[in-house]
Amino acid sequence: MQTKSTARGGTRGPYAKTAARQREILEAAVAVFGSKGYSAGSIQEVADRAGIAQTTLLHHFPTKAQLLVAVLEYRDEISPDTPGTREHFTEVVVQQAKNNEGVPHLIELYSVLCGEATTEDHPAREYFVKRFERLRGEYSNELRYLASIGRLRPGIDPGIAGPTIVALWDGIQTQWLLNPEDVDVPQTLKAYLDLIIISPETGSAQQPMADSSGS
Amino acid sequence: MQTKSTARGGTRGPYAKTAARQREILEAAVAVFGSKGYSAGSIQEVADRAGIAQTTLLHHFPTKAQLLVAVLEYRDEISPDTPGTREHFTEVVVQQAKNNEGVPHLIELYSVLCGEATTEDHPAREYFVKRFERLRGEYSNELRYLASIGRLRPGIDPGIAGPTIVALWDGIQTQWLLNPEDVDVPQTLKAYLDLIIISPETGSAQQPMADSSGS
Repeated sequence: MQTKSTARGGTRGPYAKTAARQREILEAAVAVFGSKGYSAGSIQEVADRAGIAQTTLLHHFPTKAQLLVAVLEYRDEISPDTPGTREHFTEVVVQQAKNNEGVPHLIELYSVLCGEATTEDHPAREYFVKRFERLRGEYSNELRYLASIGRLRPGIDPGIAGPTIVALWDGIQTQWLLNPEDVDVPQTLKAYLDLIIISPETGSAQQPMADSSGS
Repeated sequence: MQTKSTARGGTRGPYAKTAARQREILEAAVAVFGSKGYSAGSIQEVADRAGIAQTTLLHHFPTKAQLLVAVLEYRDEISPDTPGTREHFTEVVVQQAKNNEGVPHLIELYSVLCGEATTEDHPAREYFVKRFERLRGEYSNELRYLASIGRLRPGIDPGIAGPTIVALWDGIQTQWLLNPEDVDVPQTLKAYLDLIIISPETGSAQQPMADSSGS
């Protein structure tokens, strides 16, 4: 153990340097792909923005498609999209939605790439197909758990409500990116979740809400 | 009146020819922008696909941005997104969602451009900002009307539920484009609408639903 630990210590320098360099490249790629999309953004622009030569970039990410997948994984790391929190499902979803307001460039990257990825040969298509499959399953399972402890409103189908949460979150975030003053992502998500999940305090699935925008 | 009619008759030929040519260009642009996005798609590709010279295309649409706006308006014409149908709101939304399944290339165009448009200087940004403003208002007003005739579930805020329908529709359509076998857009929309709108037949806002995908 001591030896191994020392060996790791000995290589910490170069590894840390590589990690820092890769992080710089990924931040540059977030900015370029987020503002232009993947198809229109170029490797050269990413390298320029990171302040390195294109050959250095290609040493870390040999192809543009590999860079794209790394960018998406980097985004998932910073801004996780899986609540998986059982009793506190609503609170965690709403808190994550609030956190996302602090990283609009990542939300923009996500919206641009997700739109592009619906096209046939896009290198991120498989990532998004799998991501949505996973999220639909995970959200539906969270709701099935809530149903099992009597906290899902009777008549709600977890197999439909799970995909609904994912879709609503994506759609309302896009509206928020275009018009942040008029759109409240956490409030919109909470209104839907309050409609389907029974709050443990009130024992009711629905708090009365006033009309938020007059008539 | 006779003179006017004759005059129109006399120019019908060339006008019809221009309209047919523009339609060909717009169809080509739907295909190119829908498969590559606006930034990566080129005027030359659109001209090639329409089987005309680039100068001919530019005669009809002098800039790429003007072509983009025309494409979006063309899409709105073929696939209108405003129900505005009072008592039959749910039926019309669900029917429109079913119709959209027959024009996946238009849905793809919409998803790609809407994602791209969230970026700062995109020429379709203003179109989407205005589109969402209008839709949020129209859907909320439809729900206020239903509330006025006692068909909105008590506690539902039309100012939140309106934007929710728009967001859910966009988000679930994107999931459908990526995985048409696993995602049912009309069913997902209907489940939400059944949750907030009281059916005139049953007088209930909620029909019991079975779990659609096992446990």
